[in-house]
Amino acid sequence: MNPHDTAQANRIAYRGDIVFAPTLGELAVYPDGYLVVEGRLIDQVLSASEGDLLYGGGDPSPGGGSGRIVDYRGKLIIPGFVDLHFHAPQFPTRGLGLDEELLSWLEEYTFPEEGKYSDIGYAGAVYRRAIKELWRQGTTRVAVFATVHREATEILFRLFQESGLGAYVGKVNMNRNAPSYLLEDTEQSLMDTREILERFYGRSQAGLVKPIITPRFVPTCSLDLLLGLGRLAKSYGACVQSHLSENTGEVELVRGLHPEAPSYAAVYDQAGLLGQTPTLMAHCVHSTEEEIDLLRERGVYAVHCPSANSNLSSGVMPVRRFIDSGVRVGLGSDVGAGHSVSMARVMISAIQSSKLKWLWSSRQSVPLTTAEAFYLGTKGSGSFFGRVGSFEPGFEFDALVINDMDDTTPGFEEMPLSERLQRFLYTGDERNIEARFVAGSLVVEPF
Amino acid sequence: MNPHDTAQANRIAYRGDIVFAPTLGELAVYPDGYLVVEGRLIDQVLSASEGDLLYGGGDPSPGGGSGRIVDYRGKLIIPGFVDLHFHAPQFPTRGLGLDEELLSWLEEYTFPEEGKYSDIGYAGAVYRRAIKELWRQGTTRVAVFATVHREATEILFRLFQESGLGAYVGKVNMNRNAPSYLLEDTEQSLMDTREILERFYGRSQAGLVKPIITPRFVPTCSLDLLLGLGRLAKSYGACVQSHLSENTGEVELVRGLHPEAPSYAAVYDQAGLLGQTPTLMAHCVHSTEEEIDLLRERGVYAVHCPSANSNLSSGVMPVRRFIDSGVRVGLGSDVGAGHSVSMARVMISAIQSSKLKWLWSSRQSVPLTTAEAFYLGTKGSGSFFGRVGSFEPGFEFDALVINDMDDTTPGFEEMPLSERLQRFLYTGDERNIEARFVAGSLVVEPF
Repeated sequence: MNPHDTAQANRIAYRGDIVFAPTLGELAVYPDGYLVVEGRLIDQVLSASEGDLLYGGGDPSPGGGSGRIVDYRGKLIIPGFVDLHFHAPQFPTRGLGLDEELLSWLEEYTFPEEGKYSDIGYAGAVYRRAIKELWRQGTTRVAVFATVHREATEILFRLFQESGLGAYVGKVNMNRNAPSYLLEDTEQSLMDTREILERFYGRSQAGLVKPIITPRFVPTCSLDLLLGLGRLAKSYGACVQSHLSENTGEVELVRGLHPEAPSYAAVYDQAGLLGQTPTLMAHCVHSTEEEIDLLRERGVYAVHCPSANSNLSSGVMPVRRFIDSGVRVGLGSDVGAGHSVSMARVMISAIQSSKLKWLWSSRQSVPLTTAEAFYLGTKGSGSFFGRVGSFEPGFEFDALVINDMDDTTPGFEEMPLSERLQRFLYTGDERNIEARFVAGSLVVEPF
Repeated sequence: MNPHDTAQANRIAYRGDIVFAPTLGELAVYPDGYLVVEGRLIDQVLSASEGDLLYGGGDPSPGGGSGRIVDYRGKLIIPGFVDLHFHAPQFPTRGLGLDEELLSWLEEYTFPEEGKYSDIGYAGAVYRRAIKELWRQGTTRVAVFATVHREATEILFRLFQESGLGAYVGKVNMNRNAPSYLLEDTEQSLMDTREILERFYGRSQAGLVKPIITPRFVPTCSLDLLLGLGRLAKSYGACVQSHLSENTGEVELVRGLHPEAPSYAAVYDQAGLLGQTPTLMAHCVHSTEEEIDLLRERGVYAVHCPSANSNLSSGVMPVRRFIDSGVRVGLGSDVGAGHSVSMARVMISAIQSSKLKWLWSSRQSVPLTTAEAFYLGTKGSGSFFGRVGSFEPGFEFDALVINDMDDTTPGFEEMPLSERLQRFLYTGDERNIEARFVAGSLVVEPF
């Protein structure tokens, strides 16, 4: 089926066991419910009895009274996963070099790999595989770093457009403190970024793939470069993504490079790259109170990447403090420092890390519940893309159909939907995902 | 093929990319090596050039000069995974109730599930599925808790015997502080335990499945019961497994129940259940220095269950301190508090937890490397079963053949074996496991 055929149908009711998280900590559950979609948007979710009244109940069949019904009875229907931090060129090195910390890992594993993306054949081959894996794992929207290479980045754009997934794609900018083969001339870096903005801004298929301004992080970007990128962000109204306060060595390095700045975040702020347009800052493990306040004031998303932060011995972002402080929080896999593309794994990692954080904070920092982690990886992260990540009326219909039939669990049929969701997140995998929808359209395996 | 046919062949050389951990932190790697097995034991491991000389190199074919060659070229051959802590009756509840801590989780999820094993039909159905999953995930030896029910426990014995996997199987003892449907009369509990020892001790097929004395933990076992079990352990020379210092609430509870005891471990010790025969103590998260000293003196295995300890907000066992103190350390999945049966996942969880522990100990508690975690889940744990978990001469041939061909990684063929192992542990799964051997025999899918 053409991935976009279904968007043409006027009104479709998806019938199944519907679970989503409209607010932090709360699950909305509709056993055997009806999720009514019109075009790319959700119209409403109906309980079994409401839906039966409207659609006649019984066996669903095409052409019922109120439109077509798609039968996913006995299967979970949940919002698609949203990954706010993913490095496409690190896909081949995931799971490697993880006995290192951030700065040596970058030098020994990541930079050498990223150097290869001057070869567009190589880039295309890897990027296809990375996108296919995102699709398999149920990630329906993703914010992605490419490399400094303009041509390879444009290939990544086109492949995402072809895939049917939603993405912000960023050409990385770097002009200092990196191997020569990855260093850009400041003017060229800005010109290439502008070129990509011109070429892709607002013109992508169905608006699902958009450029995002992507300074790697302060250590590899001079203030000149950052200021230039800030000007581009402003003039195009383009979003921004970068890294912030991941590792203590990195924080020290930034302090040494910018002794005048009141905080690491303040360097981005000074350049117009901290919420002047919608902004993602990955990690925020070692953010000070002052930095947290600044992120809240600027409406910046703090992107929690728990697996990567454990893998590189960076620490645990105090996610509860961020939430309580009113900072927007989302989740990221941070592949390749994170080894798993699966956002379900990332949610579990966030929960586990938060429990250890709780213990080590003398039980002050309340751990995340399963429902909270699920919210963060769906609506929490999805809100960066607009009305995405929930099944409330007016939200884009991004969804996963989960065939979680489990013959290893006697009494599976009687499990409440909240437990079936928890079971899937903890023990399921991509083999349980039967269908993926983005903005109303069924998305089939790309490439 | 009958799982034991291969054991009949006199001498078999398995040719492939051989990796094992003979000591903590050290990997032995034999690219395109030969692993020579005689009956159930490893004779030697030969490098490619040594093996080519002896076996003529080139295409392996049956009936070569020095015996049969089995061709696993291009695939990893690693020791089988050993899981020192697994609750078979919690297999259906894994991944559930993990927003709780230990004591409420036991009451709300675990005890009600364990109550069902008075029904031997139910027990047989679940235990088949649990063993099949152990097989799938590459666990070749496992120390297992059943429930208090003698009949269901005997079924678990027979199913393990049928499977070809190696196991210590324990009927659980409990006579206080649990729901009435799980409480035993002390005398009956001891008689049932003795009955199982009589029936299974030393008579299991190929010696692969053995009984183990299994008081659940001090809170649910009176001193009378513990003393009786200690006498049984002594008179049969039977091994012992239990839980120790997992959660602060539990430690408090034990202190209240046994105010006279100098430590939690001392209660077991007083009963003859702490290393008087080979002993496994799961968790040891909150062990005092005194307790650690006692464990070392008694030669007790401290079984690290990192995923379960994160899931139930118990904490992180100071694994480095145990190792440095000379305590024997192994790994356990602790299904169902641990959600994954895979020991590869448990190894990664051990590494991640140790990195956070390192940070929170002001960088004193050196984190585990990948090679160290691999050692703990193979030879470290395997030594409880004898000469198991390594490929040194005289060790039992327990092995996994890993087909890790990875077309998502350009240059995969050139990766060093240590990186291929790391990649598999972090990102692989049971789909990569092509064959499993226990004590020289190929083990096919059970049931």
